Amino acid sequence: MADRTSIPRRHFIVGAAGTACAGAALATGASPALAQDGALPDYVAWKEPDAFVRHSAQTLETRRSEIGSLITPNDVLFVRNNLPSMTAEEVGEPEAWTVSVEGVAEPRTMTLAELKALDVTQVASVLQCSGNGRGFFEHETSGSQWMTGAAGNVVWTGVPVASVVAALGGIAEGARFMTGTGGEKIPEGIDPLTVMIERSVPVAAHERAILAWEMNGEPLPLAHGGPLRLVQPGFYGVNNVKHIKRLAFTEEESQAKIQQTSYRVRDVGESGAPDQPSMYEMNVKSWVTHPLMEAETGRVLINGVALGGAEDLAGVEVSTDGGASWAEARFLGPDLGPYAWRPFVLAADLAAGTHRIASRATTAGGTTQPEEFPPNHRGYGHNGWSAHAVDVTVG
Amino acid sequence: MADRTSIPRRHFIVGAAGTACAGAALATGASPALAQDGALPDYVAWKEPDAFVRHSAQTLETRRSEIGSLITPNDVLFVRNNLPSMTAEEVGEPEAWTVSVEGVAEPRTMTLAELKALDVTQVASVLQCSGNGRGFFEHETSGSQWMTGAAGNVVWTGVPVASVVAALGGIAEGARFMTGTGGEKIPEGIDPLTVMIERSVPVAAHERAILAWEMNGEPLPLAHGGPLRLVQPGFYGVNNVKHIKRLAFTEEESQAKIQQTSYRVRDVGESGAPDQPSMYEMNVKSWVTHPLMEAETGRVLINGVALGGAEDLAGVEVSTDGGASWAEARFLGPDLGPYAWRPFVLAADLAAGTHRIASRATTAGGTTQPEEFPPNHRGYGHNGWSAHAVDVTVG
Repeated sequence: MADRTSIPRRHFIVGAAGTACAGAALATGASPALAQDGALPDYVAWKEPDAFVRHSAQTLETRRSEIGSLITPNDVLFVRNNLPSMTAEEVGEPEAWTVSVEGVAEPRTMTLAELKALDVTQVASVLQCSGNGRGFFEHETSGSQWMTGAAGNVVWTGVPVASVVAALGGIAEGARFMTGTGGEKIPEGIDPLTVMIERSVPVAAHERAILAWEMNGEPLPLAHGGPLRLVQPGFYGVNNVKHIKRLAFTEEESQAKIQQTSYRVRDVGESGAPDQPSMYEMNVKSWVTHPLMEAETGRVLINGVALGGAEDLAGVEVSTDGGASWAEARFLGPDLGPYAWRPFVLAADLAAGTHRIASRATTAGGTTQPEEFPPNHRGYGHNGWSAHAVDVTVG
Repeated sequence: MADRTSIPRRHFIVGAAGTACAGAALATGASPALAQDGALPDYVAWKEPDAFVRHSAQTLETRRSEIGSLITPNDVLFVRNNLPSMTAEEVGEPEAWTVSVEGVAEPRTMTLAELKALDVTQVASVLQCSGNGRGFFEHETSGSQWMTGAAGNVVWTGVPVASVVAALGGIAEGARFMTGTGGEKIPEGIDPLTVMIERSVPVAAHERAILAWEMNGEPLPLAHGGPLRLVQPGFYGVNNVKHIKRLAFTEEESQAKIQQTSYRVRDVGESGAPDQPSMYEMNVKSWVTHPLMEAETGRVLINGVALGGAEDLAGVEVSTDGGASWAEARFLGPDLGPYAWRPFVLAADLAAGTHRIASRATTAGGTTQPEEFPPNHRGYGHNGWSAHAVDVTVG
C-alpha cells in the first residue's frame, strides 16, 4: 500500500504531532502508544501506514493533513474499536451473515443476501468518534487523545432500516428505542454487559438508519464492521454498531455499560449515569486542514472541512487573526447532503509572522460553533473553534 | 491489495467474460491479452487484481460487476494509456512539476505548487474511453474491445483553468482551441506527431476544465496522469491529457495524429480526417451492473449506472423483457452534478426463465439512448441500449 500512488505522500503529511496542541496527546495517553512508523496491526494492514497517528492497536487517528477531501478514502479513514474487530473466520461467508430483527410485527432472522434483495440506498455521512477533539480539552480526560482525525466522510450503501421494518409488518407497539447489538465474541468469565457493544437510539432515528454492506464502493472491511453495520447518519460513531447481529425495537434502552454509563455527558468528576445525555446527534463543527504549520508570504489557500451534524450548513467563516475578524469561505464540490461534510477554501494574503487560523461553521438552522466548549468528564463532543485553531508561521 | 477488505471479493465479481457478448471481445483483440489472473503490471500493481478484464498491459477494463458504486475507487478504475505511463523518476519532485501556459496575455510556466496556491475546486465527472462499448459493435473494429468497463466516476481536485487564465491576463485574441500536451517521452527515431498525446478542444470548454492533482482524495497516481492532468468534465477520456506539460490557447487544432485523424467518427472503411467529428462530449448512456447472469425467482434489485454526458439526467428506465415494456428506476444517493453518473435501482419480480434486462437513460434536455447505435469505423461512442442489455437466467 505504501506504493499505492507511486507518488511519495510525504508532501501531504503534516502530523497532528506538529500542531501546538500535540502536547496534550503525549501527556495523557491511557493505552500504550504504537510506534509511529512501520507496519500497522494485521487487521488494518491494508491501510496507508503514513496516514495515521497511532494511539493504540485499536485507535488510529487520521493525520490532520490527510483529511481534507470530499470523501475520505477507506485506507485513510480512522479506526476505533471498543472490542477487537471480528476476524474473517468468525464472520464466515459474508452473504450468509444473519441479523435478527426483533420488536417488529413479524420478527425474524435475515441474511445479508436477503437484505441485499430487499432494498438499497446510498447515504453520505460523517463517521466521527464521540471523543474526537478530546485532546483539545485542558482538563485531563481518559480515553484516546484524538485531535481532529477521528472523523471521515463516507458514502455508505445498504438497505434502509425503514424498508426492513416495512417488510416485517412495522414496529411493535410501545417501542421507544432502536437497539443494535454487535457480533463480537465476548471473552469467557466476563459479564457480557460490561463489554458488549449494544447501543440504543431514539426510535425515530430508524427513519434515516441503514444496514450497510459497502463503504465508498468497497465491501465493508472487517475493521469497519463488515460484513454488515448499522449506520445512523448524523449520530456519533458509537451508535453505528459494527458486525450487527441483532436489531431490536425495544421499550427500554440497552442494559449494556456502553449505553447505561459510557458515552454520557456530565461534569468533570461525575460518574456516568442513564439520566445524563447520551452521545447521539453530532454538533456543528469545522477545522482547517491546510496550512497547519508553515506557509510562504503572499497568497495562500486555507482549506478545511465543515459538518452540520444532521443539518445542512449555511456557511463557514475563516479567521487569520485568531478570531478578531472573519471572512466567509467558499464550499468546494458537490453537496452530499445534511449528514456529510463539505470541504471549504478561503484565499488569503498573509504577511510574514505567525497567524492563528480558525474556522467557524454555522448550520442552516442558525447554530454556530462556540468559541470555547465547556469541559465534560470524558471529553466528548468538542466543537469550540478556538481550540481547533492552528498557529501558522509565514515567511 | 488482494487482502484489502479482508473479505473475499469473489462474490462481487462476475466478469464481462460471462456475458452473452463476450465473444466479440475474444474474437478481435488486436493486442496480446494478458493473463486474467496473477500480478498486474508494475505501474498498476497497487490496483485490485481481480477487478479487471485484462486486454493488454496498457488497457485494463473494470469488470461490469465491479462498477456500480457512486464513486469508482481508484484501485478499480479502468486504465488506458496511449503511451506508457511516466515513471516517478521521469516525473521527479511532484510539487516542482511545471506546465507551460501559452496563448494567454502573460504566458508563463507554472509549478504545481503555484497552481495549488492559486485556486482549487472539486468536480465529480465520469472518465470514459471513447471506445467504451466497442465490443458491442457487430462489425470488426480495431482497438481494445471494451464492453462497459472503460468508465468510472471520479471526484477530481484541482485548479479551474479559468482561474489560471484570469491570473495570466486572459486568453489571447483569436484562440479557437485549448490544446493540452502530455509530458510522455517520445522514443527517438519516431516522428513525434505520430505518437505524442496532444489534444485540442473548443476554447469554450476551458470554462469547465481543471488542472487536477488529486483523484478521489488521493494524490493523482502516475497511471492516471500524475502529478497533474487536464480534466475536461463531460468529454471523453482522450481529452483529459495526462502528465500535462503545456496548456496552450491556439488558433488551430494540434497537428498530432491523435487530434488530426484519430478519434474521428466516420463510416466503416473510411480513413480518419480532420473534417470529421472529433470525440468531444460524451453522449447519454446507462447500463445494468447487477444482476448480470443469474438471479433467483421472486424479488430482485436491478442496479446500474447512468450518465448524461454533460447534462443532468431526467431519469432512467429499466426493462426486463428486452425493451417491450419499461419501468422508471430510482436514483440512489446524492446527485454529484451533470458530469457525474448516478447509480440507479429498480425492484422487479422475476419468474423462472431468461429475462433480457436493459436500461435507457434520458437527459434533462430530452435526449434518450437509442435502441441501436450506428456502426462507425473505430467503434466509438456506443450508447445503444439493446446491445448493452444482459440475459439473466432466473430460477
